[in-house]
Formats: sequence, C-alpha cells, structure tokens
Amino acid sequence: MPTTFERLCEHARETALLNSIAELLQWDERTLMPSAAGTYRAEQITYLSGQVHARHTDPRIGEWLSELAESDLASDPHSDSGATIRMMQREFDKLTKVPQSLVEALSRASVLGQQAWSAARKANDFASFAGVLSEIVELKRAQAAAVGFADVPYDALLDDYEPGETTANVTHVLEELRQELVPLVAAIADSPRRPNLEILRREYAISQQQAFGTQAASAIGFDFRRGRLDVTDHPFCAEMGPDDCRITTRYDEHFFSTAFFGILHEAGHGIYDQGLRADQYGLPPGTYLSLGIHESQSRLWENLVGRSRAFWHHFYPQAQTTFPRALGDVPLDDFYFAINDVRPSLIRVESDEATYNLHIIIRFELEQALINDTLTVSDLPAAWREKYRHYLGIEPPDDADGVLQDVHWGAALIGYFPTYSLGNLYAAQFFATADQELGGLDDQFAAGEFQPLLQWLQDRIHGPGQCYSASQLVERVTGKPLGHESLLAQLRTKYTSLYGLE
Amino acid sequence: MPTTFERLCEHARETALLNSIAELLQWDERTLMPSAAGTYRAEQITYLSGQVHARHTDPRIGEWLSELAESDLASDPHSDSGATIRMMQREFDKLTKVPQSLVEALSRASVLGQQAWSAARKANDFASFAGVLSEIVELKRAQAAAVGFADVPYDALLDDYEPGETTANVTHVLEELRQELVPLVAAIADSPRRPNLEILRREYAISQQQAFGTQAASAIGFDFRRGRLDVTDHPFCAEMGPDDCRITTRYDEHFFSTAFFGILHEAGHGIYDQGLRADQYGLPPGTYLSLGIHESQSRLWENLVGRSRAFWHHFYPQAQTTFPRALGDVPLDDFYFAINDVRPSLIRVESDEATYNLHIIIRFELEQALINDTLTVSDLPAAWREKYRHYLGIEPPDDADGVLQDVHWGAALIGYFPTYSLGNLYAAQFFATADQELGGLDDQFAAGEFQPLLQWLQDRIHGPGQCYSASQLVERVTGKPLGHESLLAQLRTKYTSLYGLE
Repeated sequence: MPTTFERLCEHARETALLNSIAELLQWDERTLMPSAAGTYRAEQITYLSGQVHARHTDPRIGEWLSELAESDLASDPHSDSGATIRMMQREFDKLTKVPQSLVEALSRASVLGQQAWSAARKANDFASFAGVLSEIVELKRAQAAAVGFADVPYDALLDDYEPGETTANVTHVLEELRQELVPLVAAIADSPRRPNLEILRREYAISQQQAFGTQAASAIGFDFRRGRLDVTDHPFCAEMGPDDCRITTRYDEHFFSTAFFGILHEAGHGIYDQGLRADQYGLPPGTYLSLGIHESQSRLWENLVGRSRAFWHHFYPQAQTTFPRALGDVPLDDFYFAINDVRPSLIRVESDEATYNLHIIIRFELEQALINDTLTVSDLPAAWREKYRHYLGIEPPDDADGVLQDVHWGAALIGYFPTYSLGNLYAAQFFATADQELGGLDDQFAAGEFQPLLQWLQDRIHGPGQCYSASQLVERVTGKPLGHESLLAQLRTKYTSLYGLE
Repeated sequence: MPTTFERLCEHARETALLNSIAELLQWDERTLMPSAAGTYRAEQITYLSGQVHARHTDPRIGEWLSELAESDLASDPHSDSGATIRMMQREFDKLTKVPQSLVEALSRASVLGQQAWSAARKANDFASFAGVLSEIVELKRAQAAAVGFADVPYDALLDDYEPGETTANVTHVLEELRQELVPLVAAIADSPRRPNLEILRREYAISQQQAFGTQAASAIGFDFRRGRLDVTDHPFCAEMGPDDCRITTRYDEHFFSTAFFGILHEAGHGIYDQGLRADQYGLPPGTYLSLGIHESQSRLWENLVGRSRAFWHHFYPQAQTTFPRALGDVPLDDFYFAINDVRPSLIRVESDEATYNLHIIIRFELEQALINDTLTVSDLPAAWREKYRHYLGIEPPDDADGVLQDVHWGAALIGYFPTYSLGNLYAAQFFATADQELGGLDDQFAAGEFQPLLQWLQDRIHGPGQCYSASQLVERVTGKPLGHESLLAQLRTKYTSLYGLE
C-alpha cells in the first residue's frame, strides 16, 4: 500500500506528465506545425489542459495534504518532503479559493483581451482596447479579493508569479534602482562617445549564425543531448520532460544581436531547467522557483556573461572566423562597444541592459495604480507618456509604440512585469557572489571556462528547486536580502568605462 | 440531451484526439527528439496508450451499440451512420473477445521478440530467436482461437490488417500472380539488356534532393499546408489530426532513388490520409479502410506514376537542371531504364516493383504454414532458402540476409505481409480503371497534370473511408473482383519494352 505522501507525489507526477505532453503540443505549434492544423491543435491542447486543471483541483489533494500537515514529513519546510507539502498546499489553496465562474471569466477575458489588443495595436486605437482592459482589471481585483492579501490587492497578483514576494519590497528595491538609474542613463545619453552600430547590421548568414549560436550555447552549458534549438517568431524555452528542454530563436540575416543574444538568453532559461533535479520532476523540489529566478538565469548568461568583454576575448576570434566579411576588419573593442550600446528608446523588447529596467518600472507603477484604483484605464495612455518623458526623456509618438506595445495586460498578466527586473536584480547579486567565491570569473571566461560558474549555479540555485522561497534563496546564497546595489554597480562600472563617464 | 449515436461518436472522437496526441509524441521521437529524452517519452506514450486502450474497451460502447443495432441509423451498412455502427461493433467484438492476459502476453512477447530479433540479426543467429518466435506463434494461434475464424486460424490474423479478407482468396490471387511472375522475372534475368545503374549513384546534394522531392510531392497532390516532410532513419507517414499529416524520408547523397521514390511513396500514403473526410475524423467513415488499401495509394504514386516514362517526360528536364553534374549528360531513356531495373535480390525492402511480390508471397506462404502448424519454427530457415531458390533463383548466404531480415514476426505482426502485395494488386486495378475513365493518364502526366487522377482517387477511394469493405470497394470502383491481371499486364508491358522480351 502506498503511503499518503506517495499518493500525493504520484498524483503530481502524473499531472506533470500530462502537462509535459501539452508542452510538446504547444512547442510544435509554435515551431513546426503545418499552417492549417491550428484548429485541431487547439482542441488537443484544450483537452489536456482541462485534464490538468481538473487534477490540480482534485479534492483528494486537499485530503492528503490535511493528513500530512502535522506529519514528520512536513516538519522541515526546506526538506524535499516539507517543500512538497508546503508548496502543494499553497497551490491548492490558491486554486480552490478562486470560484470556477471567475476562472472562466478570466480565461474568456484573456482570449478577448489578446484579440482586442492585437487589433488596437494595428489600428493605433487604444479606445477600442479600453473596455476589455477595464474588465480585466476588475476581474483581477476580484481574483485578488478571493485569494486574499496582507497589504494591497496587487500583492495577491504578484504572488502568482513571484511566490511570497510583496509589493512593498519590490517597490522599495525598484525605487532605489530608479533613483540612481535615471541619472546614469541620462549621463550616457549626454556622452559624446557612440559605438558604431553598423557593425552589427552587416550580412550574417543564417546558417553561420545558427552554428555559432549553437556552439556558444553548448559552451556555456546547454546540453544538446537533452535539448534542441529551433526557429520561431516569438522565442521561448519549453520543457517537455526532465531530459527534453527546447529553446528557440529567430534569425535576422542583417542583424547579429537578435539571434545570438536571444540564444544565450533562452539557453540560460534552458540551463536552469536542465539543472533542476530529474528525480523530483513534477514535484516542487524539481520545479523552477519563480519567474524572477528563471529570468535571473537567462539574464545572467545573456548579459553578465554574454555581453562581458572577457566572454568576447574568448569568442571573438571565432566570431571573426565565422563571419570574416562582417567582422574581419573590426577590432574587438568596437564590437564590444556596439553590443553594449545604451540609449533611451520606446520599445521594451528592443531596449538595452540598462534602460530595460526603466521600461519595467514604468509598467510596474502603472499596473499597481490600475489595480489599487488610483488610475483609470482611460487615463492610462497619458500616464504612460508622462512616465516615459520623466524616466527616459522621450515620448512615444503614438499609443501603438507606447501603451499598446506589450500583450501582457490584454492577456490578463498583471503582476508579471516586475519579475523581469527582479530577474536582473537577482542575476546581478548572484553573479557578484559567484565572482567573489570563484575567485574572478573574468579570467575564466577569457579562457573559455564556464563550467565553474555553471556548477556554482546548479548547486546553489537550480538544485534546491522550491525548497526555499526566492527571498530566502537570495539570502542563503548571497548573505543579504535583495538590493539594487549589485546591478547598479555592474552597470556603472561597465558604462563608465565604455562611455567615459566621470 | 445527446442521442445514443451522438454519445458513441463523441466517445470515438475523443479517443481519436488522444490517439492523435500519441502520434505526435511518436513522430517527434522518430524525427527530432533529443537523444536523452527517450525514457520519459516512453512514459508519456505508455500513459496515453493506456488511456486509449481503456476507452476502446469501455463497456458503455457495447451498451450503446446494442441499443443502436436495430435502429434506422444501422439499416444501411454503407451510410455514414451504418458504417460507424458496423465497424465499431466489429472492433469492440474483436477487442473484448481477447482476454486481457493474452493481450498482455502478446504485448510482452512483441517487445522481447523485437529485442531478440535485433540481436539475432546482428549475430546471424536464428537459433537465439527461435524460442521467442515459437512463443509468438503460439500466442497468435491463441488469439485466432479467441477471436474465431470461418476457415483457417490465419483468417483471424489477416482480418486484423485487411478486414473481411480471407486466406483462401488471397492465396488464390497471389498464386495466380506467382505463376506468371516467376517466368517473367526469369526472362528479365536472362535478357542481355541491362540499365546503367551508376547514373543513380552519382553525387546528389541533399538540399537539392529535398527541394526536388518536395516539389514533386506537392505536384502530385500532397498538401504542405496540411503536412510536412522531415528526416528519419526508417521512413513512415503519420497523421496527428485531420489537417496534420507528416511524411518522412532519409537521404543518401550518393543514391538518388532512396529519398525520391521514398518521398513519393510516403506522399501517396499522406495523400490518402489528407483525402479522408475531416468531418468524420476519428469515425469509421473518416478512417483508412485497410493496410492494403493504404499501401495501394503509396504504391500507385511511387510506381505507377513515379516510375512511368510519362512522369519523367515532365520532370526530367527539371531533374537535369537540379542535378546538372549528375544528370546533365544522361538521356531520359537511360535514366528511365535505371529507375526500372529489375533483378532477383535477397532483401525485400531493396527489391524492385516486380520481384517485390515474390518476396511477399514467400513470407505469406511461410507464416501461414507456421500458424496452421504445417511448419515448425526450427524448419523455417531451410524453408525460406528453398523458396528463394525456387521463386527467385537465388539463395541467401546466411539467415541475417534471409529469414532474419524483417522485424515483423518478432513484433508479432503475422498476417501483415500480404497487405503489401494486396496494395500492389489494388493499385494496378484502380489505375487501369482510372486510365480508362480519365481517357489516358500518360498524356496528362507528360503535361504535369496529376489533379484529375488525384480527384478520381479522392472521390472513389479516399472519400468513402470504411463505408465499404476493401473487396466491395474494388468491385464498385473497377467493376470486378480483385485479380492479378492488371498488375501483371502493367509489369509485362513495361518490361517487355525495356528488356526487349518477346
């Protein structure tokens, strides 16, 4: 007879199995599926999602968890069994607190919201999107009320993506970051130094980009025996089993950065997934901790490793051999400056390592205001323009390239944006600690050695899964709570030298 | 409230949906899956297969069918509803007659049989395979006894792959074919004329083969908006939804025929799947009729179209442009002769259009003898050699290239082989009728027109699905029962001219 804990785990593993199959269906849809097959694919995915959802709210889970709450297995919340019981209880409570009617209304509003958003963006017509966005805001408030929160409704939404994190803490850290970042970005914008960006816009054959990107992803630790790299329109990383993690990218024959840094970014996500413990697949100790922590791993490899001078000290000769006509006559320092260009811009997804966080802070402030009822949807475009002027010194000419540029709000993803900047902050703080503990990463990168950093991350970040909360993990790994200092120091050091700031 | 018939159909459609998901998992496993992901993939497939199997034997199906047996919906066995009730009853009866213990024993023996076969073939050691093969023969006899049969036990096994077909009828047709084919093949072997096969062994760049094969598959009617072509080791065609049919091939840079005729063959299978009625997907009227009919469509496009002189009259200039160094100096007639080379050989899957059927007849006779207990497994290798000497005039030097060359018997697929030759026979008879009704196909092929034949096949063969049995369909479409005459006439006409026979 299996024990109650074994039943609980077996149930969760079977749910994960179904979910992994849905992941393959979705990956295939976004990479290879024939164009006419979409309708039936939607039926396949809906069917499995329905099964997964029903399993997540299976009342037996509640009974098993009640039985286990006072058991020895739950006594250490950071042990595998303790984390399993704690996190499954958390998930079960959240799911069962939201009434089915609200779940369905949110699901419906999200589909309509994405359609309305897409049309509104094309037509540059915010008014046509405002109605459904207002409805989404109402529904998300209702969700927050149903789940409950300690301080403000936004807490409940943030908690969906960054479990245990609070609005107050994120506000505090991002506010400190913003206060120093705005003048830094302004100083860079005032600098007379400018990289030659034309270097990156030369001809880069796609087959060569693919070969070079694959080699770099492999060098930093993405395991191609347990993964693949494919092409898609909107790159992502998907996991469809403990030994099957697939990253995607898109290639622009006339722009080096899109695919290469995109591959490093997705490889960073993939390396995290591949670093999770396979024997705990489908259970909390073998599951990624939060969106912010996931993002920290992609940002770390993309920016802190992939945009470092040491990385290119090692890879640039190879890049020159691979793209002799584009890079043969370009000195390393010119290339390095070009890939680290910083300038205020309108579009988040095209922005650089420094200004990116200002784009996020704007969204974080605005969506909080919507949820906490200090801003109406109709006032949103004006508020958006005002914040861009204030933080980045520029103003979008229209809403299409302004408030309508991201799908998130139309998809009912409110509370999601700050995880991108949390990722940058975690990454910077982890990286600073690794650099110290491993005795200088630059020399290792310059020698093409990425294994020590990989192992350090696997041991400290990937291996524990959900055995600690993100804030606990940060304290355990870096010895202090999350702050803005590491990120700001890294940006300041890099740009002071590149842009000749004082 | 849904009617009983609606419930039955809804149940079948949901089973098909699950099955289509399993198809994607298997297709992915055989084309793209990372090497380390096999263990978990097996778990995913086993899980879904278990769900599908449980649904197939759901007792409610039996209840619904009993209710419907005397209803108006069942009165016309060839209507959509009548065929659905008739074929689902047939399947349900077969599945529920075989005890679960026998199903499991067969499943286990099939796994062990394939492992033993693979090792035995490598080691050229039939004796190490004989034990499990004897067990498989016993289990298949038990299966035949459980299901029941009219005449001989082999009838019950044949019926799994070619529903409604009888051993007596297949024996009769193949015996007539053999009697005329053996002397025809011998006459060809005696002919002093020989094609220059070196033509096909020149350098054919894989990317060009892919482009040319894709273009040809598209030209004959494979719809790439509803399908794909990918690379694999053992080519196959898989359907994972009404608008998602994927064919596969393998490329040999130094042999033209493998990929090109392989693509036409699989495209033929795919065109059949794409021609089934999407609104009946998952129900008998939207399901392929039999393995023999499926194979008839692949053979028709591969051989009767793809190896015809008229086809190459149209495509050869393009082939010469695509492969100028290999074919630029080769006259069409030399190429045409080379792709129609006939010679007795040892390996079925490498054999030509004419001798192929003798390979099948040998297997059909031997597996019947095993099941009907007139041949023991230990006497099988000697019987194999004797038949090859007798029908093809050659003898395998060892069992690896003899009785051990095919996986089928080790995989418990007994009764499957004759469907390959049935495919050739159906194809020839359909083609002769189409040629007559459409007023000469050669002129159409020479002008690159394949749409009339495609439409003819869709209307007469694909559209009806399982509304008629294969033998009924042959009579309806061609006006007479299946015979050997059309196939033999086509082979005789082609080879008499190529090999200068009298």
